[in-house]
Amino acid sequence: MAEAKYDVLTVGNAIVDIIAQAEDDFLAREGIIKGAMNLIDTERAEHLYSVMGPAIEASGGSASNTAAGVASLGGSAAFFGKVCDDGLGRVFTHDIRAAGVAYDTRPLDETPPTARSMIFVTPDGERSMNTYLGACVELGPEDVEPEKAAAAKVSYFEGYLWDPPRAKEAIRLTARIAHEAGRQVAITLSDSFCVDRYRDEFLDLIRSKTVDIVFANAAELHSLYQTSSLEAGLEAIEADCELAAVTRSEKGSIVVSGGQRVEVDAFAVDRVADTTGAGDLYAAGFLYGLTHGRDLERCARIGSMAAAEVIGHVGPRPQARLADLLAEHGL
Amino acid sequence: MAEAKYDVLTVGNAIVDIIAQAEDDFLAREGIIKGAMNLIDTERAEHLYSVMGPAIEASGGSASNTAAGVASLGGSAAFFGKVCDDGLGRVFTHDIRAAGVAYDTRPLDETPPTARSMIFVTPDGERSMNTYLGACVELGPEDVEPEKAAAAKVSYFEGYLWDPPRAKEAIRLTARIAHEAGRQVAITLSDSFCVDRYRDEFLDLIRSKTVDIVFANAAELHSLYQTSSLEAGLEAIEADCELAAVTRSEKGSIVVSGGQRVEVDAFAVDRVADTTGAGDLYAAGFLYGLTHGRDLERCARIGSMAAAEVIGHVGPRPQARLADLLAEHGL
Repeated sequence: MAEAKYDVLTVGNAIVDIIAQAEDDFLAREGIIKGAMNLIDTERAEHLYSVMGPAIEASGGSASNTAAGVASLGGSAAFFGKVCDDGLGRVFTHDIRAAGVAYDTRPLDETPPTARSMIFVTPDGERSMNTYLGACVELGPEDVEPEKAAAAKVSYFEGYLWDPPRAKEAIRLTARIAHEAGRQVAITLSDSFCVDRYRDEFLDLIRSKTVDIVFANAAELHSLYQTSSLEAGLEAIEADCELAAVTRSEKGSIVVSGGQRVEVDAFAVDRVADTTGAGDLYAAGFLYGLTHGRDLERCARIGSMAAAEVIGHVGPRPQARLADLLAEHGL
Repeated sequence: MAEAKYDVLTVGNAIVDIIAQAEDDFLAREGIIKGAMNLIDTERAEHLYSVMGPAIEASGGSASNTAAGVASLGGSAAFFGKVCDDGLGRVFTHDIRAAGVAYDTRPLDETPPTARSMIFVTPDGERSMNTYLGACVELGPEDVEPEKAAAAKVSYFEGYLWDPPRAKEAIRLTARIAHEAGRQVAITLSDSFCVDRYRDEFLDLIRSKTVDIVFANAAELHSLYQTSSLEAGLEAIEADCELAAVTRSEKGSIVVSGGQRVEVDAFAVDRVADTTGAGDLYAAGFLYGLTHGRDLERCARIGSMAAAEVIGHVGPRPQARLADLLAEHGL
């Protein structure tokens, strides 16, 4: 096996977040499902922007946040995802490259425009996302760079990629190249409603060993196996895949792998400012650990540390240099 | 005198901030004057963006931050400032209107593009700004809305407006309308280098009573009167204008007015994340107090409170609702 050039390659929707504070009754009035990723069209996007409070813009996208997290920890990361060559596309491209991530997916020339997600953060810090996919619908197997897929220790992609029409073909191709090169493949289930939309396909990806490692939060695990029992979900995922990490918000995370089970506490946070990116950064920390020879408990603790940093401020990517925090916490 | 429709009208450069962390040696290497507003052209803007780290975008601009602050405190505010009808222009317009500020300046159709400031925040929280003025150079007297200028208790403008060519004409017109309507006029000196560029004009504005109220930080005061003595500066400004508020970072602020002198401490801040907007929000708090019948000490304390909120997080405008903080602190 050739030496890996990248620790982690991630594949996902390339999105710029537009983030504002909102009250819970605003979500109810606007029909936004709290805590979820709500898909929206152009008309709905215009309406929501017209009623949105003052916002900030920050590059986001689940798998791209994970790549930025790996790089911030000191790992090497690459990303596949589609933007348009417009203002937001240039912002996205700048930010991910400036984070140190290798990013070379060819942008669209004209339309559709770069994806954006209007994110409403309620006083409890929970985020509710409203995503216009735009240019992301054009991601396809022609965007897979085989040399990167073959050169990453882990290729990681988001379940959200089942929403655009052809991204799943890019995923299957990436996974095949990665496995042929002797690498590992990971998925995050992304969102419990997303799991509900694509349950059978996700189960097939896992059971067919197209993916080796699964990241999920408790709600996504419950949805995947249609069970209200965490224990039943953990047993099912353990039987289905090589390694799974299940996050439980302030209750920490549980890792299951071939009979081994590791439980890790969440890191203490002074104030939950904005949960956007928490799961993405947990995955970044975990994968950084995994690709740097840490044991599973250490992997989960690095994940918790990275998640704690990102929920302490508004915005989905680290503001602190995670490599410094890693050293500080002796992880 | 007709009833005032607005507490505060502000006039300034309409800017979107692009904010990233940077080390001090980066500033030195790139020739950026720390803590200052550095004016840049297109070529320099492209270079700096190419070497800038991952950033977030947030609407900024000194006087527009002040208007947003007044609105967040529960006051009524209006703003004059020029954007282009492009992506950043739409972001700026959205954010200031969503903050509750009356904003109707006609945008440019095509070029120059909306102004942006690349802001580098060093580990000490200090911000160093690099501003491309773009559309702001087109602000002129034709952008003055006389009914707003006549209907605001205080018209406030930034010294930065002496950089674009014709904005000073808009200011003189606004000040004349305001005074004819029996209102007050205020200026912030903006930046010690800006004072150095326009010292004689600023002194003339003050001594000719074109402005009644002056906001300055200590460095700007020293620059205005070319003195290294704070006391000498305070005595000079007291002799020259009706009311002056001088901010001194963590040392609080000093207000002088017709023989009266009030010193107020800074509010405690856990961590200085980003000083961008500190002076703007101090002015917002002070002017909110002044237009709501508070005494000078209370005005300064509201200013300190608003400044403390904005330096506690990255971004130049309040994230908390300042009206809630006002009630909490009994101000």
